[in-house]
Amino acid sequence: MVQQNNEFSIIRQYFNASTRTPRKDVALAIGDDCAITEIKANQRLAITTDTLVEGIHFFSDIDPADLAYKAVAVNLSDLAAMGAEPAWISLALTLPKVDHRWLATFSRSFFEILDHYNVDLIGGDTTKGPLSISITAHGLLPRDKALCRHGAEKGDWIYVTGSLGDSAAGLALLQQKRGQNTDTALSQAETYLIERHLRPVPRVLFGQSIAPYASAAIDISDGLLADLSHILQRSAVSASLKLDKLPLSPQLIAVFGVEKAEQFALAGGEDYELCFTVADKNCAKLERELTHIGVDYTCIGQIRSQNANKMIRLKRGAEKVALPDVQGFEHF
Amino acid sequence: MVQQNNEFSIIRQYFNASTRTPRKDVALAIGDDCAITEIKANQRLAITTDTLVEGIHFFSDIDPADLAYKAVAVNLSDLAAMGAEPAWISLALTLPKVDHRWLATFSRSFFEILDHYNVDLIGGDTTKGPLSISITAHGLLPRDKALCRHGAEKGDWIYVTGSLGDSAAGLALLQQKRGQNTDTALSQAETYLIERHLRPVPRVLFGQSIAPYASAAIDISDGLLADLSHILQRSAVSASLKLDKLPLSPQLIAVFGVEKAEQFALAGGEDYELCFTVADKNCAKLERELTHIGVDYTCIGQIRSQNANKMIRLKRGAEKVALPDVQGFEHF
Repeated sequence: MVQQNNEFSIIRQYFNASTRTPRKDVALAIGDDCAITEIKANQRLAITTDTLVEGIHFFSDIDPADLAYKAVAVNLSDLAAMGAEPAWISLALTLPKVDHRWLATFSRSFFEILDHYNVDLIGGDTTKGPLSISITAHGLLPRDKALCRHGAEKGDWIYVTGSLGDSAAGLALLQQKRGQNTDTALSQAETYLIERHLRPVPRVLFGQSIAPYASAAIDISDGLLADLSHILQRSAVSASLKLDKLPLSPQLIAVFGVEKAEQFALAGGEDYELCFTVADKNCAKLERELTHIGVDYTCIGQIRSQNANKMIRLKRGAEKVALPDVQGFEHF
Repeated sequence: MVQQNNEFSIIRQYFNASTRTPRKDVALAIGDDCAITEIKANQRLAITTDTLVEGIHFFSDIDPADLAYKAVAVNLSDLAAMGAEPAWISLALTLPKVDHRWLATFSRSFFEILDHYNVDLIGGDTTKGPLSISITAHGLLPRDKALCRHGAEKGDWIYVTGSLGDSAAGLALLQQKRGQNTDTALSQAETYLIERHLRPVPRVLFGQSIAPYASAAIDISDGLLADLSHILQRSAVSASLKLDKLPLSPQLIAVFGVEKAEQFALAGGEDYELCFTVADKNCAKLERELTHIGVDYTCIGQIRSQNANKMIRLKRGAEKVALPDVQGFEHF
């Protein structure tokens, strides 16, 4: 096949959704001025946008397969935090040049994750410019259910999925490695942490499963403390957290030790785990619902009444611990 | 007010949709993991994405008010070409630095055009990086009506709105001006053409009005020949165009002369006028419907049966004219 370099041929060669079986709710996909989609009468839409920019969110030599995966995953994570079922995405891809090997790898990985979550690519824009990927993801919500940030109430238990801090630790390892001239072999634990950074798993089914029982939820993209703060602010409450309950992976502890691991867990970004709150009366139902989901979750604290001076209090056992001076990921 | 420079404060300061009266179909706007929106049972969604990148789609010294206007307008134009009523947009804004004066001007203009078309900002992402704006726009369609590219049939008349070529001529003038050292005053006609380039008017109401009668439509972003070709390809037909019917503005002719004006009209991009086709039996109804819209439209030719060798034939009066060797805007 002659390889053409214009926008239309890039879309045709690498992002041709028409060769795939479309979702039933996609009436018209790529190839017209707009896509046309449908939702059922008892559904609402959840819509989110996330951009990844070279040099800010990823290194310029990132494997395009990892990049495509992550660009989709971070958007699906927002849908998961809302309790939505992923449905369609639009891809705005800005590329410095047409690199066919790069595009082939990127698009293969891109459709792999879309297929895994039964999501259709319905449109987008391919332009020349500094490498960046902006995705708008659309999910479906039952009309009466959504996991918002503003529903946490005093007494609710605070949970997180999976383990925290792995992604930030993985990023630190990648940065270390780039600073070295020699190509040292990675331990299994190090490989695990880097994988957690490059391939975060959006908690899609989990989010949908807890939606009827949780009072609030957010995905942890900027670090536990920063993201939990969003729930607390929007719900006008405070929280107490038990440091010794933080779910830390054995790999994280093995590579960095407990103290550093805790810091990563509290302040490290890009875990893409869910943090959610549940009223005491709903905990038993929630646990029953989650039996078959296969994702660990841990109660790490409890919602308290509003406290203007101290939004989050930390304890280790019965002992109070000072809040580390951390902030979520800020790139400006 | 203390001016903070992180992402959250930029959104709060400049893109705070919560101070505005939201549309009734927006259940939850900016400030959570996703926006939540609703559509009526008899509606479908039209979704489109367009990106503008510095140095490719606009000069780096563009007035941020013009940039905000155009970034929204080009997306609304895609909705118009589908016959959709604009509803919500997501904004992915990538900025090299936090320039408060720039952001204030950009966001004021941004909300001005949104308010004009009754569109709500429902979310997005603000990141650091080379300046670019990616917008995903959502429109509402009656369940049984949409203006697609694939419906043109032999015998249908081909129409365009407004006048063609002004925008490309305006861009040429801007480029000329940048090449000059002196700041020569612009004539009224030149100012008009530049305005047509910087502030294209999306044919939103027009698109909705023709939707019941037109057989196909597209907005002219890459030039008449390139965009009409998309309709012809998707509809498996060809077209004959009458050069002497091309709607050329007096300003375009005054500044560039008829011959150059025709070239701009045929091949110049970014007019954001609509090109649409109508079956003969629907023309009278269409004209009645358009009486009150106040946008000019012109019949410029007719759809012919498929012709693999010649998709578009040009005539001036009865005389055949060779197709100029032009292509739509290609930035790779």
